[in-house]
Amino acid sequence: MRPGPNRLAVTGIGNAMLDVITRDSNGAYESLGLVKASMTLIEEDQLDTFYNAMGPTIEMSGGSVANSIAGVANLGGTCGYIGKVADDEFGERFTHDLRSLGVELDLAVAAAHEGATGRCHVFISDDAQRTMATYLGASNQLRVEDINEGLISRSEITYVEGYLFDLPPAKEAVRKVVNLAHEHESLVALSLSDMFCVDRHRRDFLELVTSDIDVLLANETEITSLFQVRHLERAFEAINELGLLAVVTRGPQGADVVLPSGVVSVPAREVETVVDQNGAGDMFAAGFLYGLALGADPVEAAELGSLCAGEIIKHLGARPEVDLEELAIEAGLL
Amino acid sequence: MRPGPNRLAVTGIGNAMLDVITRDSNGAYESLGLVKASMTLIEEDQLDTFYNAMGPTIEMSGGSVANSIAGVANLGGTCGYIGKVADDEFGERFTHDLRSLGVELDLAVAAAHEGATGRCHVFISDDAQRTMATYLGASNQLRVEDINEGLISRSEITYVEGYLFDLPPAKEAVRKVVNLAHEHESLVALSLSDMFCVDRHRRDFLELVTSDIDVLLANETEITSLFQVRHLERAFEAINELGLLAVVTRGPQGADVVLPSGVVSVPAREVETVVDQNGAGDMFAAGFLYGLALGADPVEAAELGSLCAGEIIKHLGARPEVDLEELAIEAGLL
Repeated sequence: MRPGPNRLAVTGIGNAMLDVITRDSNGAYESLGLVKASMTLIEEDQLDTFYNAMGPTIEMSGGSVANSIAGVANLGGTCGYIGKVADDEFGERFTHDLRSLGVELDLAVAAAHEGATGRCHVFISDDAQRTMATYLGASNQLRVEDINEGLISRSEITYVEGYLFDLPPAKEAVRKVVNLAHEHESLVALSLSDMFCVDRHRRDFLELVTSDIDVLLANETEITSLFQVRHLERAFEAINELGLLAVVTRGPQGADVVLPSGVVSVPAREVETVVDQNGAGDMFAAGFLYGLALGADPVEAAELGSLCAGEIIKHLGARPEVDLEELAIEAGLL
Repeated sequence: MRPGPNRLAVTGIGNAMLDVITRDSNGAYESLGLVKASMTLIEEDQLDTFYNAMGPTIEMSGGSVANSIAGVANLGGTCGYIGKVADDEFGERFTHDLRSLGVELDLAVAAAHEGATGRCHVFISDDAQRTMATYLGASNQLRVEDINEGLISRSEITYVEGYLFDLPPAKEAVRKVVNLAHEHESLVALSLSDMFCVDRHRRDFLELVTSDIDVLLANETEITSLFQVRHLERAFEAINELGLLAVVTRGPQGADVVLPSGVVSVPAREVETVVDQNGAGDMFAAGFLYGLALGADPVEAAELGSLCAGEIIKHLGARPEVDLEELAIEAGLL
């Protein structure tokens, strides 16, 4: 069932970012003190050091939830995005790339002294793992007054990026997003984003998932970190106690959909050569949330997520390169 | 035989460009009046129109001869590049991407009123053909006084981009390049770049190939356009009359090496899925010229070119994504 006229399947709120991507066969990320496969925050005065340490780069729009929204649009879904950019070239390109997909935008523009548009330096190792160094910049300045009810009030699902919790003023903004969503009967979905991010903000996340979140998206390390448990089974129990719908992505092992009736595993799509795992979680979220917005049951939705994740890891970058809608129709999932 | 200490295998001179690449399933290029699979020049005041008509883009360094030089560096060759950029973000990134490969740069910087760094809008059709709209910008301002003998005097081969002929002041610069190369016993190689480019500058090209060029690189349509003949065989005869070494690339049909003793065909590498033909000619040139610089015979050199071209068409963008040197060593070509 498609959302009605003027309705949106999903509106995302997150850090607006450009990705600056390099192949890193020599482990340059290590000499920069980065932790493999995770995200480290850097400051504006470190930008040159990081960029100069990279080999040739390609640049494209990124941002975890923005990637998911691009995925929903690519699947044929109506969607919106809320974030903050600067009045600079990177901000212009971020805007162009979502707008050209038909995404409705509510982008706040940072003042000149608030920093440049955020960018994420992505190092792709030969084993297809991605290590990230992120300058938040203007995205860091998202404030409660930047949140309008327009897009949220029309959305089946409002999708919030965990990384937002790294921005002190954004916590208040997230609170407003959640309240608006509840007011307008929009489901609230949260991505835990990154295990270190969970570590930094465990208390805030726990508070949120306890009272305000309908759907939780996480990978294995994030979810076990959140509940400070060693085994995934314990995390599943905690999820069920909270009455959440959750999906836990497990890379090549597929995804576990946590339902009151039990855990259902959905296999990962077989991919001949994994080039870049960057964006796999984001694209899984795109398919999963779009499926839910269309009224699919969570397991069917996870199958659509799995299809989208399988496409993105075949090439560099976290935005889809093929027509996902066509792919999903061929696979009988749309 | 590797070039001696402080020597360079190849120095390239060409238009310094950033590529702005989009997948174009809907033929947006047509509504912009572009001719499929060729390059059209656009002006600064058209930049917004073209960018706004594109879907989501990825950006990376480009420029035909600059791509070839990136390929030579990736093959393990020492090399240099001469061109002109503006003092802006695109210029900075173009510089970063070649420098990070170890390429020695002699980049002139345009004055503020001379335009922004050149950029090429690339539309990739579903059949993997690329259609280009190029804003020359600062690259357009390359002048004779920007040409120094430093890099050329140390190079086995000096590689000149045909597109340079679209820049009135650059013709004189090309003349200086050729003279310096001859003075220092550097072989001069010329790429014909594009059939329309050949059409625009046939007289200049003919003069150059008649007296000043040692190696000519072209595809089928370019070479038949140059000599205004219908059949490739007539073009081969003209090449032999001029005493040139030439290689004619023919896409999936491989490449023809034109020698005094006859024409030798080198097959194209088999590629499962061709994603983007952009850069195939540039990467063929990289392998071919590097092979010649190492003292390989032209047919062996063409085999190395074929290997490099086969890699680049597997993914979006005209700069290599894998270690070509490793690939060539595995194939017994280095």
